[in-house]
This record gives sequence, C-alpha cells and structure tokens, in this order.
Amino acid sequence: MKNVNIGILGATGVVGQEMMKILEERGFPVASLRPIASARSAGGTVKFKGTDVTIVEASDNAFDGLDIVLGAAENDVAERFATSIVNAGAVFVDNSSAFRLDPKVPLVVPEINPEDVKQNSGIIANPNCTTIITMVAVAALAKESPIESIIASSYQAASGAGKAGLDELRAEALAYASGETVEPKAFAYQLAINVIPQIGGEQYMGYTSEEMKMQNEGRKILHLPEMNVSCTCVRVPVFRSHSVSVVLRTKETIGVERARELIAKAPGAKLIDDLANKQYPMPLDTSDQDVVFVGRIREDLTDPNGLNLWCCGDQIRKGAATNAVQIAELLLD
Amino acid sequence: MKNVNIGILGATGVVGQEMMKILEERGFPVASLRPIASARSAGGTVKFKGTDVTIVEASDNAFDGLDIVLGAAENDVAERFATSIVNAGAVFVDNSSAFRLDPKVPLVVPEINPEDVKQNSGIIANPNCTTIITMVAVAALAKESPIESIIASSYQAASGAGKAGLDELRAEALAYASGETVEPKAFAYQLAINVIPQIGGEQYMGYTSEEMKMQNEGRKILHLPEMNVSCTCVRVPVFRSHSVSVVLRTKETIGVERARELIAKAPGAKLIDDLANKQYPMPLDTSDQDVVFVGRIREDLTDPNGLNLWCCGDQIRKGAATNAVQIAELLLD
Repeated sequence: MKNVNIGILGATGVVGQEMMKILEERGFPVASLRPIASARSAGGTVKFKGTDVTIVEASDNAFDGLDIVLGAAENDVAERFATSIVNAGAVFVDNSSAFRLDPKVPLVVPEINPEDVKQNSGIIANPNCTTIITMVAVAALAKESPIESIIASSYQAASGAGKAGLDELRAEALAYASGETVEPKAFAYQLAINVIPQIGGEQYMGYTSEEMKMQNEGRKILHLPEMNVSCTCVRVPVFRSHSVSVVLRTKETIGVERARELIAKAPGAKLIDDLANKQYPMPLDTSDQDVVFVGRIREDLTDPNGLNLWCCGDQIRKGAATNAVQIAELLLD
Repeated sequence: MKNVNIGILGATGVVGQEMMKILEERGFPVASLRPIASARSAGGTVKFKGTDVTIVEASDNAFDGLDIVLGAAENDVAERFATSIVNAGAVFVDNSSAFRLDPKVPLVVPEINPEDVKQNSGIIANPNCTTIITMVAVAALAKESPIESIIASSYQAASGAGKAGLDELRAEALAYASGETVEPKAFAYQLAINVIPQIGGEQYMGYTSEEMKMQNEGRKILHLPEMNVSCTCVRVPVFRSHSVSVVLRTKETIGVERARELIAKAPGAKLIDDLANKQYPMPLDTSDQDVVFVGRIREDLTDPNGLNLWCCGDQIRKGAATNAVQIAELLLD
C-alpha cells in the first residue's frame, strides 16, 4: 500500500477523533479519509487536515473502496460491520475487544510483536489500553527472561470511558466548586474526589472484564501463554493517562540496574526514575504523548525474581489511537 | 484509671482536632482536657464539649498532672517532649513514627494486639495510617494462617498530609473551575486530576519511608517478624479515606469463601463485597467512619495461597485519631 483510502468507524468519539489527529501528525499517506458513524452523526462533518469531511452512515456498503478501516467503535458495532469491511477488501484495525482473543486475529503492539500483523485474515486487533501501557513497560524485561506472573493495580483515567467519562468528571469538578453534585451516568458513582474499584462487569472468579484483559491479552502480545496476571483495575479522577503499579516475576533474576538499562533502550518506553529528585511518571506529565513512561523500579521485597515498577501512558494515544495508526503503518510495508 | 486528665500534643492539627471530637463521641471519661501546641497557637482556644479550652504552649512542664497524652505532632516534637511526658507520670500515646519500631514501645491496633499495651514503659505508639487500615483488613486472615507476604498499592487521600494537604487539594479543585492553577506546597506536584507515586522520602532500596512502614510496622502488629511486604504508596486526589489494593500470601490456602467469613466477623472490619451489584468500598462512602471496609476478595491468579482484596478506611479516624483513643481506652482497664 502506498496511498491509502482510510475509513474511521466511530469517527465522532474520543478515540476516533484522536486517530484523525494522529494520522495527520504522523504524515500517514492518506489518499482519502472517510469518517463513518451512526445515523445520528451522519451528514455532519469532522475536520481533517483543515478540511471539513462529511460523515457517512455506517452500513454494509459504507466501506467500499477503502484499504484500511480503523475501528473506534464499541464491540457490537465492530461485530456488526467486520464482515462488510473484510468483504470490501479493507483491513480492519479494530480497537474494540470483540476480536482480540480470536486465534485468527493478531493482537499487536508494534513495538513488541509487529511480525504478528502478517498472520491477519483481514482483521487486526488493537489491545486494551491498560494492557498496551503495561506491556510496553515490561516487554524488554520479558525478552531478557520470560515473565511468569504480574500483579498489577491500575489508576485509570476518566477518558477510558470515552467522551461521556471525560465530560462527567469535568462536570463533577466544576460542580464541586459551586457546592453542587452531578448525578453520575458514565460511571456508577461520583468519580471526583473518589476512586472506583470496578471497571467492566464481572467476568471470571470475581475479576472484571477489564482486569482479565491484562492476563488474556498480555499472554497473546508477549507470546507467553502461561503468564498469570492478578489485576485490580481502579478508576481515579484523572482526565488522561492511565498509571499502573506493577510487580512482575521473571524466570531468572534480572535486577534493578539491568531492568533500568533494558527499559531505557526499549522502543516506545521512556525511563524516568530518580526518586531522590522526585522524578517519576505522573498522569499530568505524560498526557498527550505517545511513549510509556516508567519509573519507581525496585526489587520486589517478597520475591528475589520480582521487580516493582510504576508506568504511565496516555490511554487515548498510545493506549488506543496511536497504537492503531502504528499498526496501519506496518501494513504500508 | 477512672477519670482521666488528658493532654493533646498538637491540638490544632487535623488529627489533634479529630482526637478531641472522638473523645467526646465515645464518652471517654475525661476529668480535664489540656490542648498543647506550639507558641504560635498558645493562648488561643479550642472547643471541647461545647466549652472553649485555652491552648497551653508545649514545654517540659506542660504535662504536669496529666494521666494520658495523645500525641498528634510530628516526629521532632514527639521526640523533644517524650521524656517530659513520661517523667510527668503520664502515658504517651504517640501518633508520630518516632518510637514505633523501638522494641520497648508497643505498637498497637486495639482490634489486633491489645495485649501488647501492657508491655509499655510510658510510651505506646499508634501505627501509620495505611498500615492500620491494611492490618485491620488482613488480621483475621493472618490468624487463620500466617501471612508470608503482602503486595500492596495504595490510593492515599490528601488528608494524610494534614490540614495543609487538605487545603491544597481543595484550593486546586476550586482553581480548576476558574481555569487557574495553584502553586503546590504541601505536595511536590499538583494533586488535583493527577496521582503522585511518592509519599515520604527515599528510605530503603528505592522504597519510600511510607512504603517501608507497612512491612516494618505490620510485622510488629501481627507478630509476624518474617512477613515481607512490597508496597507502592500513591497519593490520589481524594480528601479522606485511604484505599489499598492488597495481594497477600498465607502459609496455607484460605480460599475466598472462608476469607469472606473471617473478615465479616473481624473486629473493626466490615465486608462490602458484591461486585454484581456494584458494592465495594470507596473513599466517598467510607469517610468519617471508624471501621475498615473490605471488598473485591478474589483468589490471586498467580499463587494458590494468595488472595486479592481492596480495603478503605478513614485515615484521620481509624488511621490515626480513633486508634489512639482506643489505645487510651485500653489503659482505663
């Protein structure tokens, strides 16, 4: 592929909007861009490279003539249109979780397993945001010695729940100042000045769907089918950038100094690890960027083969839109 | 002791104020109350049982005639006056970390190790807030089978940094609404719409002083000198109530159902664990209360003897002031 006719399915959402911005930023060779959304948005316009582009209603024929479709819609929409996209001859790079664990569908983080893209049959899945951020942080360690287990606790931003989540936190923050409260809709409870220890519904043995993604998707991305992950996913009152407190155990001991070296060189990762000078990743500093920031690397005091670390990454960019555009770039070659 | 002459060292701070409120609430048999603070506050008054009580300046003679002194001051103040308090014949129940690891000083959570109070030589230490909350959550499990290790990630409220921390988060939240920012002083960075993965200075192998407290104090409280703890302490934009994501490994397997039974009956703990109905502890629901709320109990997917849980507790009350008053109550018997 040289000049690409590209479609964005779910073009009006937070991730869809960011995908267009990132295509532009990275100089992706776009021959034409077709924003696709529900009937409600169709006929309206979105901006791309300074031009208003008309939104097309999602339908079986909406994908004709496209080479790549970036999916930024929910599972039901992705499932509804996947066959139409593939039948139209386009490759579907899908950000929903609908196809991620399908053995015929590659699940790709371009810095980690770019070669998996080749095995696609028309669909390539973009992993879960928290999983992408954590896997970019730990992939270099997994190459040094296989990761046997991960214990992770997340601090996830409101933007993980899309525009509705962002808007709700913003409204709650403003309401706080005027002494009012807002009826929560995007989240089950007020998120401002609170944390909510549930993301997704119950899925497996008391773990939520979000919590199981890090194990199930992480195994596939790292090619470590035996890796076990105990994850606790928590929503925090932050707009962008998820943070994750990670303890990982590798087959052989890596050690803190070697881990720092490996992460400093790892593609897509940036080491910020100087506690004495109060340098470590934080959501405010790591938003609107494409790399995953890693710090607080320490020996795990409970296991000689364990390492603790703290990572932050913008979940809309590297956790979703940028990763999808990077996958599309792999398809150009 | 029947009717107690009680002093509050650090009476004007968040914890000191809460101690007076809790003495009143619990009907503690106060014969007289003496608020003690720095020269700056001396001569002013604080309210106790509806009466204005004059604040006395901290000095070597300020403790004469007292039976119990509740310490709500920083380490340097506690160290400066501990001998004067003991020489005055009072028992010093100290909330600072100055004496917690001293082998001659009991470190007490009344629901867990009340009998340790008897071994005091005039000083009894109140543990760290995050440690108290986590230990109340896990103590019943430790009795069933010894805890060998804990991996914990905390979500700590601004009130852990006292009135200055509370005021700063409040100011930042209000500034957000007017599009302004506030220069951080109580915290190293802006806390509103952010999380900060450092509490305390660097202490041991890249861990902060706050992070090491859960291992060092937890061992002493649970009488488990071999227990290892890997802790990551993180400040989150919440006013009161710390939350902790805990993974613990016991010598023998306990299992989720038995763990629920044990925690439901545990003194000072309350089980709120029904994910299907979105019931779990959160800071907003657990503030201004004295019990530690526990939920999200799950098997650890990385270890058959492991259990995951999530706990929340008001750090000013059970994490500090209430626990100190409960220790004072033990001294009445």
